[in-house]
Amino acid sequence: MRADIGQISSYSPDDEVLYGPPVGLPALREAIAELWTRSFALEPKLRDLNVSVCSGATEGLSLLFRCFARDRAVGLPRGFWENYANGVELAGGRSVLVDYFDADGRLDLAGLHDQIEREHIELLVANFPSNPTGALLDRDECAALAGLLRECDCLCISDEVYARLRYDGKPAMSLLGFAPERVVVVSSASKEYLLPGARVGYVLSVNSDLTDRVLRKLIRANTASPNVLGQRLLLPRLEAELTDLRAGREPQFLGALREELKSRRDALVELLLRRGFRLAGRAGGEAQGTIFLMVHVPKWFSGSAEEFAEAALSAGVCSLVPGDSFGLPETLRFSFGGMTTEQIGALDRGLGGLQAELKRSN
Amino acid sequence: MRADIGQISSYSPDDEVLYGPPVGLPALREAIAELWTRSFALEPKLRDLNVSVCSGATEGLSLLFRCFARDRAVGLPRGFWENYANGVELAGGRSVLVDYFDADGRLDLAGLHDQIEREHIELLVANFPSNPTGALLDRDECAALAGLLRECDCLCISDEVYARLRYDGKPAMSLLGFAPERVVVVSSASKEYLLPGARVGYVLSVNSDLTDRVLRKLIRANTASPNVLGQRLLLPRLEAELTDLRAGREPQFLGALREELKSRRDALVELLLRRGFRLAGRAGGEAQGTIFLMVHVPKWFSGSAEEFAEAALSAGVCSLVPGDSFGLPETLRFSFGGMTTEQIGALDRGLGGLQAELKRSN
Repeated sequence: MRADIGQISSYSPDDEVLYGPPVGLPALREAIAELWTRSFALEPKLRDLNVSVCSGATEGLSLLFRCFARDRAVGLPRGFWENYANGVELAGGRSVLVDYFDADGRLDLAGLHDQIEREHIELLVANFPSNPTGALLDRDECAALAGLLRECDCLCISDEVYARLRYDGKPAMSLLGFAPERVVVVSSASKEYLLPGARVGYVLSVNSDLTDRVLRKLIRANTASPNVLGQRLLLPRLEAELTDLRAGREPQFLGALREELKSRRDALVELLLRRGFRLAGRAGGEAQGTIFLMVHVPKWFSGSAEEFAEAALSAGVCSLVPGDSFGLPETLRFSFGGMTTEQIGALDRGLGGLQAELKRSN
Repeated sequence: MRADIGQISSYSPDDEVLYGPPVGLPALREAIAELWTRSFALEPKLRDLNVSVCSGATEGLSLLFRCFARDRAVGLPRGFWENYANGVELAGGRSVLVDYFDADGRLDLAGLHDQIEREHIELLVANFPSNPTGALLDRDECAALAGLLRECDCLCISDEVYARLRYDGKPAMSLLGFAPERVVVVSSASKEYLLPGARVGYVLSVNSDLTDRVLRKLIRANTASPNVLGQRLLLPRLEAELTDLRAGREPQFLGALREELKSRRDALVELLLRRGFRLAGRAGGEAQGTIFLMVHVPKWFSGSAEEFAEAALSAGVCSLVPGDSFGLPETLRFSFGGMTTEQIGALDRGLGGLQAELKRSN
């Protein structure tokens, strides 16, 4: 009999939602381990002990920074989600911007190597597909980056929440498949499973001492445990995917979602190019993954990116994020994650109206 | 149009659970503010801005320690939930055990004053009803403690997750009603609403700069936002209570729950006294609140509290928490939160069997 748990039960069972374990429901941990192992052909295979379920990828990142960033220099990609910088700062580390790509959009291994040595970077954050630029790596580049991590004796936190939302037709990749001993992955149910408000994320590592012991302790102190409602909602979606994967099929739901997102991206790219925006993705191209499109401020607007965002908002056209918050000044981030055909039409008319109005007033 | 949010929407609406705000759904913040204002006759009244919803009381505590404990001495009650000590340590503070009560169970204001001055305590944790001892304060004691906080220029984090689970027939109290400018309250949906696995907690302060700005930023970095599934489950329960409170009635669900818990406590007290345990609550008495009962190791067992817990576990009687983890050695914590009449019977037989077996083997 459990006389040790601090919860009320067996009173009104239909109303009760009891505590789940600190690192997640066992069935969910198992499903995530199998899904990643199968999706990315991981070797060694992941087991339930290699998975810590937590309150969104955000909690995973925040706890990993507390584990590894303290008093250390942490390399953040130029073009980074601003929570990385917050997490490093709150953990007592120092953020250093690094450039993964050269001016032509090539993976700049020599440059990265120099930056890591010069700045004494011991922890590198990778995020491919990248928020905000939509950049991703191909197989050879993943292998080369893994080699660099070994060469520089560097640990890598790889934020892979968009791992399988890539639109270049190539198979999705995880850095965990290339340098398992140096890469800790963070991912979540938010993007591929449409559940951001469920707050279910996870950390993956071949080192189960991290995922099963250290993070268990930290999660207990930080949030006690991830909520079971979101976990229960996620589990059947993973199981449906596993059914497809075990049968050697591409996961059906994910495949259809990717098609839809690709067509949203294509429509937004077409519109923005036609309206005079230049793309600011890898090699000056379009986003190859994620739900974001990075562009330069158009020539027809004379102000800064922040001023453009303000003008678009106050004209009722749309809300945007200026690139400064990602370390990419004079750019703008559009999200196409929620853009239906009707909204693309409305955005087109809105931007047209804004341009016409500015022309009149000059 | 929102082109700034990092989520996928308008694709498969029935499957989507979209992000909620970092400090909680507006309707939930409002309901919590009104419920606390009405339940505890708070003055000034709380508004939605005075409420930060977060991922359980645990996240609230953890973030408050990060706000207020760094490089400071923090007074924890002797008999404390172990997460307080973890939170203080992770925030870079120093825990100091303080005694709220003297040997006769009286609130020891002079002793507390001395400890606060001597140890330079700037932050005091209060937890009434108390986990693990079940101790609570009456109205005069709350007022006296509020006076002490002012006198010593001390901030207080008051963990009130069991606020209305008190069995002495007196009205529930919140320290926020006595020293609003010095008390920050943490509470949750876990106990009174039977939703520990939903992970919905909240922080209350008359200083909305803390709840609406500082904690918004910290929650964003720590977990992004609390899950909306649990918030949606909690909201109608609060609304049902508000209907009762507005009509001047005692909340019906809570009243019935309290009666049930009181009868579970009474049955456990009767059983344990009969089996030779001495109670270790305030003034050596029974728990007046919470779902816990603290007892001394019975005379018929010659070992330590840890050894008793191990013996009870390995004999299949029950799992218990030894008091060491609360700073109360040689005691044991029983939870009656899940104890049905049948389980009380089984526990009775189990303890009887354990005692008989020990007698035989000696």
